[in-house]
Amino acid sequence: MYETNTDVRSSSSLEPCGSDDHDDCGIRLILDRLGERWTVMALAELSVGPRRYRELERALEGISQRMMTLTLRRMERDGYVLRHVEKTIPPKVTYELSELGRSFAAQVAMLVGWTRQNKSVIERAQVNFDAQLEKKE
Amino acid sequence: MYETNTDVRSSSSLEPCGSDDHDDCGIRLILDRLGERWTVMALAELSVGPRRYRELERALEGISQRMMTLTLRRMERDGYVLRHVEKTIPPKVTYELSELGRSFAAQVAMLVGWTRQNKSVIERAQVNFDAQLEKKE
Repeated sequence: MYETNTDVRSSSSLEPCGSDDHDDCGIRLILDRLGERWTVMALAELSVGPRRYRELERALEGISQRMMTLTLRRMERDGYVLRHVEKTIPPKVTYELSELGRSFAAQVAMLVGWTRQNKSVIERAQVNFDAQLEKKE
Repeated sequence: MYETNTDVRSSSSLEPCGSDDHDDCGIRLILDRLGERWTVMALAELSVGPRRYRELERALEGISQRMMTLTLRRMERDGYVLRHVEKTIPPKVTYELSELGRSFAAQVAMLVGWTRQNKSVIERAQVNFDAQLEKKE
């Protein structure tokens, strides 16, 4: 079920983090962003195509205006999102994924795929673990 | 630089999260674990091979005993790590990655690779963003 061919496995094996990137082998840089409540959903929505502020807001159901602004600003700061302003009255603001953002979204898509494939295995492990713990107590 | 062949891209494109997995397209399940301080480093160390408790502790330089226990227990609970106890005196406790854990580590390895490849682009974007912000203020 988890088999991949040898070439892929050898090129993608996880090695102990070097002392130069002690901070989670360097992925803290993206984990901080991914860990935030709305980043993945915003990436997913923008993967479809450029979106106006209001369109995004509607897609991210339940997001507050403050979190919407923060989320987009942080994604823009990291270079994943480009912000275009048309100088109309009122100004039209559009967001779209940069090349980097599309590449990042592809990585996230792989994580989504992996999680979907393994969700039931993980959840079964959790149930078993908790049941064994209860037995011991 | 971010080009992948069309087949890969189309199979790995990120789609808006369905209403059934509103929670970050379902990856909250693994993000919660990855986001913890020591998980990635423990995964990386165990990718090399099974480790005794003390060996892991030495590898995860700076970890407290409490965090060591918590990290391993959570990884065991999710089914990534198998814990073996030899009933010697004192008991010998060994940890190793399960099949699921090795598959998870391969995913993390891809994230590590992606981050290494794009770190400088992200950091440059951050510097530019901050500089533009300062200009405005």
